[in-house]
Amino acid sequence: MTPTISIVGRSGSGKTTLLEKIVAELTSRGYTIGTIKHDVHGFEIDYEGKDSWRHKRAGAKIVVLSGPGKLAVIKDVDEEWPPSRLGFSFLDEVDLIITEGYKKAGYPKIEVVRKATSTKLMCGKDKHLLAIASDIKFKRRDVPCVDINDAKGIANLIEKRFLQKQPVSGRSGKADLIVNGKQITLKPFINGMLAEAIKGMLKSLKGCGSPKDIEIRIRG
Amino acid sequence: MTPTISIVGRSGSGKTTLLEKIVAELTSRGYTIGTIKHDVHGFEIDYEGKDSWRHKRAGAKIVVLSGPGKLAVIKDVDEEWPPSRLGFSFLDEVDLIITEGYKKAGYPKIEVVRKATSTKLMCGKDKHLLAIASDIKFKRRDVPCVDINDAKGIANLIEKRFLQKQPVSGRSGKADLIVNGKQITLKPFINGMLAEAIKGMLKSLKGCGSPKDIEIRIRG
Repeated sequence: MTPTISIVGRSGSGKTTLLEKIVAELTSRGYTIGTIKHDVHGFEIDYEGKDSWRHKRAGAKIVVLSGPGKLAVIKDVDEEWPPSRLGFSFLDEVDLIITEGYKKAGYPKIEVVRKATSTKLMCGKDKHLLAIASDIKFKRRDVPCVDINDAKGIANLIEKRFLQKQPVSGRSGKADLIVNGKQITLKPFINGMLAEAIKGMLKSLKGCGSPKDIEIRIRG
Repeated sequence: MTPTISIVGRSGSGKTTLLEKIVAELTSRGYTIGTIKHDVHGFEIDYEGKDSWRHKRAGAKIVVLSGPGKLAVIKDVDEEWPPSRLGFSFLDEVDLIITEGYKKAGYPKIEVVRKATSTKLMCGKDKHLLAIASDIKFKRRDVPCVDINDAKGIANLIEKRFLQKQPVSGRSGKADLIVNGKQITLKPFINGMLAEAIKGMLKSLKGCGSPKDIEIRIRG
């Protein structure tokens, strides 16, 4: 599972602005970052009249756009996918996932508090609170309070805790697993054994060569 | 692998219009359709100033938007993904994939020809040409020529050839496989054995219950 942290805060507190700065800072340090924006009220991404919009309106459940250098997917889901599922399906090849929103999820959180919006913490008692980014000085011994504009300071904190100079390759030999729609966490020993057993089976199959990155999907 | 067909034709011939009608018709018959729009010149989907646009601009390699009922993914890729890869990663849960474009790919094709744009076939010699949809009467014995507005007729043809009342469940027990970025096609017997071996291993693991739909990703 890719390390995941959340930027949370009240509406208008500056979550997106802080996220932008952290993404830019970590990217400049050589990390690959993926983000998840949580839109509790839904979102619009495709615009009336565009071909992809027309595909969707006609009834397509999933529409993919593909061009040089970029692809996009727009997909109907019956129930909202939790970030863990989104991470597994779409963000496995990044070093770090940063979510905007998901204050109720159990990821390490950075709460943004801006005086102009509110002076109170939303996640003050949340055991996952990793840091506070604010233009107010909060006196907390357990949680660091960083200046709201100090993206470097926050990036240092994230790097130390979650990245440890161990980009994607650091997760080698591990199997990520979803069974009947649910993510399964296995003990490292079991996980390693499963990964090796599957690699072993594939090695003997025509066309698989020396299998390193493997994706398997089984239905039914 | 999900059955895939392509709607091809010159620019302005009415590919999107025909695709819309076919998607609507097949959806009304109870099938779940996914589409791929090929934009050879690139596409814009996200608009300046939106949060997801800001995430992307800051340097995020992959941006996911998630809300009730819908999700979207915008992803940088080094090389353009072929439809088979897109199908595997994003469209495995539909009954049929219809692509708009990809005239050079080896999928069964329906070519749209509209008098006002051109009177000549682009894929006349393509062995994958499944049908011609046109307002011209082409005299071909090998390939049916259907009226450009006859979505029902084309849907009948697609249903008979590719859907055979066998929605997604018809693919049960098969494993789809990508190794080192390439899709691997296995013989049915080998495929079934691999699927059963993996299910067998998982059955004994805590939390996996009775594994039906399985996704596994291994790195390194």
